Amino acid sequence: MDKIKSRSEIGIFALGGLGEVGKNMYCIDYLEQLFIIDAGILFPDEHLLGVDYVIPDFTYLQENEHRIVGLFITHGHEDHIGGIPFLLKKVKIPKIYAAGVTVDLIENKLEEYPELLSATTIVEFKSHFVYKFKDVEVSFIRLNHSIPDSFAICFKTPLGTIMHTGDFKIDLTPVGPAAEYDKLARLGDEGCLCLLSDSTNALREGFTDSERKIGTSIKELFGKVTERIIVATFASNMFRVQQIIEACVENKRHVAIFGRSMEKTIEVGQQVGYIKAPKDTIIRPEEIGNYKPEELCLLCTGSQGEPLAALSRVANGSHKLIKLIPSDTIIFSSSPIPGNQEGVNRTINLLFKNGAEVVTHSPITDTHTTGHASQGELKLMLSLVKPKYFIPIHGEYRMQRVHADLAVETGVDPNNTFILENGDVVAINEYGARMAGHVTAGEVYIDGTGVGDISSSILKERKVLSDDGMFALIITIDTKNKTVPIDPQVVSRGFIYMKDSEELTHEFVEYSKNYLLEEMAKVKLVNLSMLKNGLSEKLSEVIYQKTDRKPMIIPIFMDITPQTNYTPAEAKFDEIKI
Amino acid sequence: MDKIKSRSEIGIFALGGLGEVGKNMYCIDYLEQLFIIDAGILFPDEHLLGVDYVIPDFTYLQENEHRIVGLFITHGHEDHIGGIPFLLKKVKIPKIYAAGVTVDLIENKLEEYPELLSATTIVEFKSHFVYKFKDVEVSFIRLNHSIPDSFAICFKTPLGTIMHTGDFKIDLTPVGPAAEYDKLARLGDEGCLCLLSDSTNALREGFTDSERKIGTSIKELFGKVTERIIVATFASNMFRVQQIIEACVENKRHVAIFGRSMEKTIEVGQQVGYIKAPKDTIIRPEEIGNYKPEELCLLCTGSQGEPLAALSRVANGSHKLIKLIPSDTIIFSSSPIPGNQEGVNRTINLLFKNGAEVVTHSPITDTHTTGHASQGELKLMLSLVKPKYFIPIHGEYRMQRVHADLAVETGVDPNNTFILENGDVVAINEYGARMAGHVTAGEVYIDGTGVGDISSSILKERKVLSDDGMFALIITIDTKNKTVPIDPQVVSRGFIYMKDSEELTHEFVEYSKNYLLEEMAKVKLVNLSMLKNGLSEKLSEVIYQKTDRKPMIIPIFMDITPQTNYTPAEAKFDEIKI
Repeated sequence: MDKIKSRSEIGIFALGGLGEVGKNMYCIDYLEQLFIIDAGILFPDEHLLGVDYVIPDFTYLQENEHRIVGLFITHGHEDHIGGIPFLLKKVKIPKIYAAGVTVDLIENKLEEYPELLSATTIVEFKSHFVYKFKDVEVSFIRLNHSIPDSFAICFKTPLGTIMHTGDFKIDLTPVGPAAEYDKLARLGDEGCLCLLSDSTNALREGFTDSERKIGTSIKELFGKVTERIIVATFASNMFRVQQIIEACVENKRHVAIFGRSMEKTIEVGQQVGYIKAPKDTIIRPEEIGNYKPEELCLLCTGSQGEPLAALSRVANGSHKLIKLIPSDTIIFSSSPIPGNQEGVNRTINLLFKNGAEVVTHSPITDTHTTGHASQGELKLMLSLVKPKYFIPIHGEYRMQRVHADLAVETGVDPNNTFILENGDVVAINEYGARMAGHVTAGEVYIDGTGVGDISSSILKERKVLSDDGMFALIITIDTKNKTVPIDPQVVSRGFIYMKDSEELTHEFVEYSKNYLLEEMAKVKLVNLSMLKNGLSEKLSEVIYQKTDRKPMIIPIFMDITPQTNYTPAEAKFDEIKI
Repeated sequence: MDKIKSRSEIGIFALGGLGEVGKNMYCIDYLEQLFIIDAGILFPDEHLLGVDYVIPDFTYLQENEHRIVGLFITHGHEDHIGGIPFLLKKVKIPKIYAAGVTVDLIENKLEEYPELLSATTIVEFKSHFVYKFKDVEVSFIRLNHSIPDSFAICFKTPLGTIMHTGDFKIDLTPVGPAAEYDKLARLGDEGCLCLLSDSTNALREGFTDSERKIGTSIKELFGKVTERIIVATFASNMFRVQQIIEACVENKRHVAIFGRSMEKTIEVGQQVGYIKAPKDTIIRPEEIGNYKPEELCLLCTGSQGEPLAALSRVANGSHKLIKLIPSDTIIFSSSPIPGNQEGVNRTINLLFKNGAEVVTHSPITDTHTTGHASQGELKLMLSLVKPKYFIPIHGEYRMQRVHADLAVETGVDPNNTFILENGDVVAINEYGARMAGHVTAGEVYIDGTGVGDISSSILKERKVLSDDGMFALIITIDTKNKTVPIDPQVVSRGFIYMKDSEELTHEFVEYSKNYLLEEMAKVKLVNLSMLKNGLSEKLSEVIYQKTDRKPMIIPIFMDITPQTNYTPAEAKFDEIKI
């Protein structure tokens, strides 16, 4: 990128987070200093077989490591901090700037990697802090979101201020600290050069409900239930958890916590003061037997139907401490994230089958609200900040596009809105802004932590294996005498049930043997590699004809051509790539 | 079941369709005669790796083949007719009764299997037909649904009439023939012994919109568009297709058809008269170049984001005839079926990126309506038919449960509602109804057509393979001299990229070799099977430690213990089961 950016231009681009919901990572690149915002993961969809996380490609950061000033974190959700361990493994980051609970969440995450923790410094910022770097001042604006301590981050340069909202909603009656609207307005007055703003809910009209409103409906709901209550919600939403605890206090219920991440929320929340409960309100899980059903609220993870979470185990009867009773009322204080709908339905059906009452979020029950701004709030943000240039971030293309249209409605020049893909660079100087080429950006697949990245060729192999399994043939061959002295041996997995298909397997073995003998007879000198490719191709066709399936064919040849005197040590194995 | 049913009882049960949406199949079993209603498939979710369809377990039908009177089909959707070829392969069905377009759809389906088509007889019924069997009269009531010729089926017995609604909605302004409300009311007057009714939309309050209303909003939408229009909808919804054609006629557009199933709909629809278009309205796909954009409407498959359907190929630029232009308007006259949301989003984002306008269904655009009755209509059906006993069918447990509650609201005795699972039998006689045990019911997985069923052990293998791939070791061993004369050879797929991990692979090979040598040294006589199991287990642990992955370990042993004089032909291979 250096060659395309003149020295006085500001480069703005994303390494992740554009055209998708997840793996957020943005860069501000100015006069030899590189500022990074967020380092998130994306949870893979089911097509990425066996992949645990997707992270951004860090190539650009590796190549420009010496210029990195620091990593600034907007808030503590996984799609903003989950990539930190992977980033630190590959790139030297001198300082990570984060606020409040975000610091705890990052520290928890790095506990497993003491070597990474010691190679960086976590700096806790407060909303009124200003960090002065060579040509850039960094400051913060508190906003509201579904996790505490969410901030917009401002980069003041001689050319003007660039503001990145992070994730936000405009909540005029928040639980927890209010957003700093005065700072937004002041920035608007002083002039904002460029706004990068959250597009997640840009397709939603109107205004997002306040978090406070959900607290009210949960309290009302609690008032109507006369037996045991089980509530599932997102563990990271400390405000929601606090409101559920308040509903318990008001209704004289004790609350017991289930699920590791929920326990952690309670622990951290109490430390920082976002979670407050009178003594004896929170009881230990083992104590629930000491109370009557109407005195209890069990607060669980598993609102997304995650198979191993507390509520899922309650539903399928495998939870150690909670046995479902037909008089239970289960409240989902959540909405299913796209992709999780089927898992959530499974859990709900199981709960229903056990006779329990299940309350999910709907416009009537009102047990959940999103943490992202709807169109009204996005326009309000744009109207307050009045940016010259606008870059919609966080979201699929469609959301970015609609968000850009909203910006134009509020007065941004259509030529000054940029709908970017990951890696696209916008360069701004005093004369204007331009699309200025690309930096390396892409997806890196993480499966486990030991080996690291996983390539798309491995994923392709998994896809073939998952569709129709594998069919390996171990073939002993004598290429000199052109014989197959032993019948090829078969190892198959995930293809057909061998015991039921002996005849079929025998057919495939016979076919292979005959194919090899015929092909060898045709030539003077046997080319083993051609023989293998030919067999793979032909056998695949035969198997498809007979079974309608296309397993991965793996021929393993053992050439036992006697050279001088055959000894086992000279048997040569190898394999062919498919 | 015979032992639990006294001779004068009617047995009612499902082999599929309860606690799920799909693979519908219901049975009425009375006095040595067995009546089957529908034979559907269920499309598998992504956990069923490589499975094409799920069908009911036909064991009960196989065991009672001699008593089967016939298969009665309510309508032509895949979840009601898709299982017919699989059923006919396993069970002799003397006659299949179906109406109108359903007959065409079944015949199309069986065209590929002439031997099946000749082994059964398809009888086309009309709504006024009555078939008299030994103790049962079968008659039909026309209803409305999102495919033409949908019928309820009534079984009149000496004990009373059992009615099965099939899929339905109450559409007072349908496109196509009206429902026969008079017959429903008459049945209610005469007395309905037991109603089996569609629960798919039992969670939805109010009344489902009429199909006619969608036609009006599509016409309005067409009136506003001044460039080319592309519409995607369900090919099976002939009424929708007809309304789109009418919108074209009114707006002087020619319509070209893309996608095989859509072509088929037009062909069959014109034959039976549900699709009518003035001459020259429908043009051939190759002709679209001869018209101006504002004279065209392209009608496509792909409303569910299916990767190979016409619209998906338009979106990703791979369609032969349709090249997207930024002035195009794409209308989705559909809603995403749960599970398809992500695929649909992908298509929409691609279309947006190409600059096209995309209109999806929303309460404002109103481009789609469901084919299933909401709560208001379900209560209307119950109020008209006034059944003594009620069995909610088609749907997950939660929907069945809510539907049963609706029945009670309309006056059905709570003790007379039965929420069944597949295989549960309700037996009714003149004195009452009772739960009367179970018949065999379950899921059969179909992968391809050649081999047929697929077992859960094969699916488990695919799951392991898809998560972390496989790691096979070909081990040459001499169990007598307790040596491993050649280094074990590795074949790995979908696990780690071998070229990048030579060192790691070498480590695993060394570990395996040492393990084998040590274990053999410990014993007098080597037990090969124990050796294999031990190696699989230990190597799996080592691999997991180093990579965080658990590939399927497949050790393949070749025992070359010299017995008399070693010749290659005596090499023994085998494999171990994991």
